[in-house]
Amino acid sequence: MKVLAQGGVTTPLGYRAGSVAAGIKKSGKTDLALVVCDGPAQVAGAFTSNAFCAAPVQHCREVLSRRRQARALLVNAGNANACTGEQGLRNARRSAAEVARGLGLDPDDVFVFSTGIIGHQLPMDKVLSGIGAVIAALGRDNSPEIARAIMTTDTVPKHLAVELEIGGRTIRIGGMAKGVGMIAPRMQPAGLHATMLSCVTTDAALEDGLLAELMAQGLERSYNCVTVDNDTSTNDSLVCFANGQAGNALIRRGSPEAAAFAAAFDYVLMDLAKRLARDGEGATKLVEVIVRGARDRADARRCAFAIANSPLCKTAWFGGDANWGRVLCAAGYSGAEVNTAATSLDYNGVPIVREGRDAGTTDAEKEAAMQGPDIKLELNLGVGLGEFTVWTCDFSYEYVKINAEYHT
Amino acid sequence: MKVLAQGGVTTPLGYRAGSVAAGIKKSGKTDLALVVCDGPAQVAGAFTSNAFCAAPVQHCREVLSRRRQARALLVNAGNANACTGEQGLRNARRSAAEVARGLGLDPDDVFVFSTGIIGHQLPMDKVLSGIGAVIAALGRDNSPEIARAIMTTDTVPKHLAVELEIGGRTIRIGGMAKGVGMIAPRMQPAGLHATMLSCVTTDAALEDGLLAELMAQGLERSYNCVTVDNDTSTNDSLVCFANGQAGNALIRRGSPEAAAFAAAFDYVLMDLAKRLARDGEGATKLVEVIVRGARDRADARRCAFAIANSPLCKTAWFGGDANWGRVLCAAGYSGAEVNTAATSLDYNGVPIVREGRDAGTTDAEKEAAMQGPDIKLELNLGVGLGEFTVWTCDFSYEYVKINAEYHT
Repeated sequence: MKVLAQGGVTTPLGYRAGSVAAGIKKSGKTDLALVVCDGPAQVAGAFTSNAFCAAPVQHCREVLSRRRQARALLVNAGNANACTGEQGLRNARRSAAEVARGLGLDPDDVFVFSTGIIGHQLPMDKVLSGIGAVIAALGRDNSPEIARAIMTTDTVPKHLAVELEIGGRTIRIGGMAKGVGMIAPRMQPAGLHATMLSCVTTDAALEDGLLAELMAQGLERSYNCVTVDNDTSTNDSLVCFANGQAGNALIRRGSPEAAAFAAAFDYVLMDLAKRLARDGEGATKLVEVIVRGARDRADARRCAFAIANSPLCKTAWFGGDANWGRVLCAAGYSGAEVNTAATSLDYNGVPIVREGRDAGTTDAEKEAAMQGPDIKLELNLGVGLGEFTVWTCDFSYEYVKINAEYHT
Repeated sequence: MKVLAQGGVTTPLGYRAGSVAAGIKKSGKTDLALVVCDGPAQVAGAFTSNAFCAAPVQHCREVLSRRRQARALLVNAGNANACTGEQGLRNARRSAAEVARGLGLDPDDVFVFSTGIIGHQLPMDKVLSGIGAVIAALGRDNSPEIARAIMTTDTVPKHLAVELEIGGRTIRIGGMAKGVGMIAPRMQPAGLHATMLSCVTTDAALEDGLLAELMAQGLERSYNCVTVDNDTSTNDSLVCFANGQAGNALIRRGSPEAAAFAAAFDYVLMDLAKRLARDGEGATKLVEVIVRGARDRADARRCAFAIANSPLCKTAWFGGDANWGRVLCAAGYSGAEVNTAATSLDYNGVPIVREGRDAGTTDAEKEAAMQGPDIKLELNLGVGLGEFTVWTCDFSYEYVKINAEYHT
């Protein structure tokens, strides 16, 4: 498998995309992106579990309840179209219809994603004229620009593509994502939430329904394992397209080819998911929280998220302090079963806790372990074989600044 | 009922207390406090639900499993005696035994509380000599000093007493508490965690076992309704003493006198609980989160805690922004049932959301509502009759500073 760092949603064959500044963001930056598949594509989607799900999420769910094929995705940044009532839903549908009209498609061929402020109606005049402009801007070699147009508080665009051989043919998977605040996706297939938005495209030919299955599996190892602030957005959305234009023999469930494809597909989702955590609002460190030795996977998950969401752990990481009391404390209230006399903790491979007590590592060694932009935390609860990994970031002055100074 | 702002644990008849600087805190401030009941007392206790519960918590639970009468409470600040293994438990027991020896009591008459750094053994030489000094310092009129000695990152001591007439006799209830970080008590009767510590004393005569029942009820309306950072400590502890020295006729379950006593007792617990939230680490505002119209109390509780713990809501409060999208977002992922079209939100009585959408209040009015040190948030989910109130605080630069710069 080859990773194409400059690749993205237009790397696979048969996809075009465009972006424009439609005037939705006050900054005047690009804020409207369109991804189009030239030809039919199998699709799968996952959306926020937030009860106040946004109008575009409602639209996408409706579309997916009627069909598993689609052709396009319109994304706007700067306005979430959430908590906007019936008017909001009408605006989401109208945006999809306008894209369909411009491309000669059915309105049910078009997904819509929104991200930005909650509670304001979309400026439909800007959106509609932007749709005309973005259709005119469609092209093949613009993955970084597209990924940039969907950003809100993100500091870098997040996109990549991979190539692999399956059955003698080259197939490609491309993806993009945004979202660095209000990030704790708990997405449910066809049913997901500073909103994280992601689109993944592939030119592989997949057996009917396989894309949805792989997406559901991949989701649980990627986006649903990320938290910045434990705030699950109203708008989290992921859609995946597979158009078969690579010309490979159909990949069937349970085959070695399906396994090879799934590994590459998961790589794309996980890589994008980690980038969200690394670019978390105000983040100075990416923290990988690995819990092992739990009673089961559910217990490991509970414990890993408790640590990843603990303000005391997050501020300690920001301070570069291997404060293990806070980590054990979070494990202790997580609800996970713990063997307090058998618990161990390592930071970047340096022993911090053994048998529930200080491992005796010197302060200098501990401090050295906490330097650098990546922290790998490994906690063993000493109970069973359950494992789970969560990606998160530290909690800095900048997080408070970004979120206290941003006014509605 | 009369509130005595300068009162505390020594206001009720038959209690003495003392405090000294034993050298456990590096700052040299007072760090060891002893509360003694002269004569037998009915007791009740509640302790952290954290699986890594501290040695003093284990000691208190053991004592309470054997008997419901005790005479004294020793509290040290500066060291949590948590994650300290068998040695830690031996040290907690030895501290209790030393107090018992000095006062001519049984070791099972003595509770021990600790708060401070996790993972370090108590400096027993300092504790033991401190015990001698604090016994010599016992007195009747020192409630503020006692409350100060148990502080860690608290900025003000927290204590009060109330007086009321029951059956023609004056009875008194006094209390103190500490804890402004690692605060999300989920305490269980005889079984509680910057640790919040609290002691409540009364000279009322109560029917056997009634104190434990009233404490269990009061706890669920007070300390268990507070969160600063959602980090449930290893050391949360509450003990209550009732010595009957007011000479009132025994207060029996279900009587009007029990109701009157319970109301006053709850007042003390709730007042102390709110003070913890107001003094939360780095806090600039006390925020009362009131959820109504929920399916049931459990749903209201889930929703209120989700809002109170949301970093996005907490930073918006710090910024003085009535950002209702973040509040509805937290309600939406809380797991509580919501009627999105019927949800309403008020900040300090000013309508912010009606029927799930912006209430149309002007920006100037919204801003005015968010000024001042107290924020009252009232959210109605439009589903049923469930209600719950949580006390919390905002999230400031200072919170990050306190917890990133504090090094182990």
